[in-house]
Amino acid sequence: LQSLRWENDALSLLDQRLLPEQTVYLRLTTPQDVWEAIRELKVRGAPAIGIAAAYGVVLGVADFDGNLSAWLAETEKHAAYLATSRPTAVNLFWALDRMKARARDLASADISSSAATAALLDEALLIQAEDEETNRRIGEHALTLFEDGMGVLTHCNAGGLATAKYGTALAPFYLALEQGISLKVFADETRPVLQGARLTAFELQQAGVDVTLICDNMAGHVMSKGWIQAVIVGTDRVAANGDVANKIGTYSVAVLAKAHGIPFYVACPLSTIDLSTPTGADIPIEERHGDEVAAGFGKRTAPHGVAIYNPAFDITPNEYVTAIVTEKGIVRAPYAENLGKLFDR
Amino acid sequence: LQSLRWENDALSLLDQRLLPEQTVYLRLTTPQDVWEAIRELKVRGAPAIGIAAAYGVVLGVADFDGNLSAWLAETEKHAAYLATSRPTAVNLFWALDRMKARARDLASADISSSAATAALLDEALLIQAEDEETNRRIGEHALTLFEDGMGVLTHCNAGGLATAKYGTALAPFYLALEQGISLKVFADETRPVLQGARLTAFELQQAGVDVTLICDNMAGHVMSKGWIQAVIVGTDRVAANGDVANKIGTYSVAVLAKAHGIPFYVACPLSTIDLSTPTGADIPIEERHGDEVAAGFGKRTAPHGVAIYNPAFDITPNEYVTAIVTEKGIVRAPYAENLGKLFDR
Repeated sequence: LQSLRWENDALSLLDQRLLPEQTVYLRLTTPQDVWEAIRELKVRGAPAIGIAAAYGVVLGVADFDGNLSAWLAETEKHAAYLATSRPTAVNLFWALDRMKARARDLASADISSSAATAALLDEALLIQAEDEETNRRIGEHALTLFEDGMGVLTHCNAGGLATAKYGTALAPFYLALEQGISLKVFADETRPVLQGARLTAFELQQAGVDVTLICDNMAGHVMSKGWIQAVIVGTDRVAANGDVANKIGTYSVAVLAKAHGIPFYVACPLSTIDLSTPTGADIPIEERHGDEVAAGFGKRTAPHGVAIYNPAFDITPNEYVTAIVTEKGIVRAPYAENLGKLFDR
Repeated sequence: LQSLRWENDALSLLDQRLLPEQTVYLRLTTPQDVWEAIRELKVRGAPAIGIAAAYGVVLGVADFDGNLSAWLAETEKHAAYLATSRPTAVNLFWALDRMKARARDLASADISSSAATAALLDEALLIQAEDEETNRRIGEHALTLFEDGMGVLTHCNAGGLATAKYGTALAPFYLALEQGISLKVFADETRPVLQGARLTAFELQQAGVDVTLICDNMAGHVMSKGWIQAVIVGTDRVAANGDVANKIGTYSVAVLAKAHGIPFYVACPLSTIDLSTPTGADIPIEERHGDEVAAGFGKRTAPHGVAIYNPAFDITPNEYVTAIVTEKGIVRAPYAENLGKLFDR
């Protein structure tokens, strides 16, 4: 089950809104298609959003006929448009910036616009291939934090479905399975969109990982029972000071973990760490429509007209973060100092 | 909107599973009907369960024809049966014990069995009438804890729908409205059965209380924003040491409240305080079917066959409880000492 892939001159994208009941791949052929897929959560997860957007830029110039400077202007227009699809995950902007930089390089070469488009597609394919390798490394580093027999809680979906492959927070679970290390995973269902129930429980179950689904409000209870020895989650953006934006509810889990003396780990590629964002307070938090809360399950579950607050993300301050696991290794506090060093290596 | 009432020789009971979309009153005529209504959450909330069970005993002898000792045996049989409907809320056992005691008194009198049944119905009606008065007093005491302009978070439904009228935790909100005191209420939706979304948001909205619905996992986030100055919840059983059993997720809210320096109040009648249960560890916690989590709202939201843990309640240790608000006033730690005193007054 692959979240997305380039196929027959189009982006083939798994519609994650329909999981786990239906496995439907959409064929996206325009930047508009990709924008909508991101906005409507057909694709989600910071790395997967970035990869999808990269392909979106390519789709924008797939049929381009003209000179290279006009081609470059087109790529920039589409990149700017795709950047408006969602505000929080920084991988979106990171991938678009990388595509823009590549487009600028290509535009200064002595090639046709169709050759430039082909080379731009290669860049998007490379972003995806690198993500897979990155996640494998994240998984290897993260697995050093766990021991056989541990209970590990995760929130939302930072798995293969959120990335090119393996996932970030879920990568160690797949590697543990390969290596015969037994972990007992608890997956928060993650209201309102239920990525934990629909996606994490699904992909771990498919792989044969020992996973138990719980409602978000059971996290504290299972911690109090002594069933959880570690928490690991993904993230949509890490600020320069180590504050972490992730799916709504992550902050509550982090506070509960601290209260129970349980380490709280965040797994992400370097492309999710945004040194240009000083603190969590500087990360824009997307607020989504109340109907996700009131009418998400096929029938209405709240009264019409009631006020609903539906932030898609929250900020976990760095003091709750035991460590951040990247493809370049495990980073601990002081984050303001140690996150920067990652990029110097 | 009344949760239940005696009407035309039967228990008329609002089917709370269908709220907020449909308002359907069921006509229950046998103890079996009542047992099923309790088990299947057509009626829920500790005080309402107790009242329903009391009427259930009456229904069991409604058509009884025989001598008083056989009548007494019948009442005891039905009471024992109704006690098996759900394990956690102590009001169920409290109400049944009260009905059994009344039945024993009546059986020793020189009356017909039909007169005894009529007097037993009076006892059930009295339990209901007392609950309404009790809740008004709880509301008055609880309101002294709040000030105009406060944000108050509640979990699950401890409102009019969970009781005869007013509710326990929600009673102060209704009184505040009458007295022109402005409170901003946040209601956790309360997975898996969504009593917060379907019932609390509904009954507060109907009454004109300023209520905002959030998902359970947003509680920590709204606390961190400074929007919450107090938490108040109901309870299904308070142990002698002040440990509190309540709807799953209550413990997480209590831990989050403590981490944010927010007082955490529990509202209940004396009939919910069980001095015969030493601590929270001695309270049986009902575990319910995983389909409540995986397929509760018209469509399947988790993969088939995945392991699900679905406890209906959790225990909040007494150190998280700032105060317990009863009809006899506000009790604070040390609970082991002060809860007992309530019953001496």
